[in-house]
Amino acid sequence: MAKFMDVHRGMVGLTADQLKEAHDADLAIQRDESVEFVNAWADPESGLVYCMSEAPSADAVQRIHERAGHPADEIHPIPLEV
Amino acid sequence: MAKFMDVHRGMVGLTADQLKEAHDADLAIQRDESVEFVNAWADPESGLVYCMSEAPSADAVQRIHERAGHPADEIHPIPLEV
Repeated sequence: MAKFMDVHRGMVGLTADQLKEAHDADLAIQRDESVEFVNAWADPESGLVYCMSEAPSADAVQRIHERAGHPADEIHPIPLEV
Repeated sequence: MAKFMDVHRGMVGLTADQLKEAHDADLAIQRDESVEFVNAWADPESGLVYCMSEAPSADAVQRIHERAGHPADEIHPIPLEV
């Protein structure tokens, strides 16, 4: 398992409820790909959403996000952390 | 105080020691701007570094990063979190 940061763009005007709903949609199916979404942070003004997950691969993260209806624009492994 | 995510690009090949050194340089002076850097995550392959902080403003975050020698390429408030 590795840690990933993914980025969604174009989410201008996102509300707290919409962020929770999107996150819950990921959580509901994440086990199918052995993914664990840990956090999501959003800036409704720029439309950016950052999600942190632990997963076997970036592809596994994307498969969950796609099935949940919000494919990521970027997914990066983040092997280093302080 | 608000939460911010900032992004540094071009850090290809960054090592764990270099990430810690950069983070420590921020920590050493963060109080001057009432900033608290919480986490930093890096992908040495794409050269991306993500930093999370609590701070009075994005400008305060940038002033610390600039003085520490690594200005951020983007700084976004992240008022929403799940």
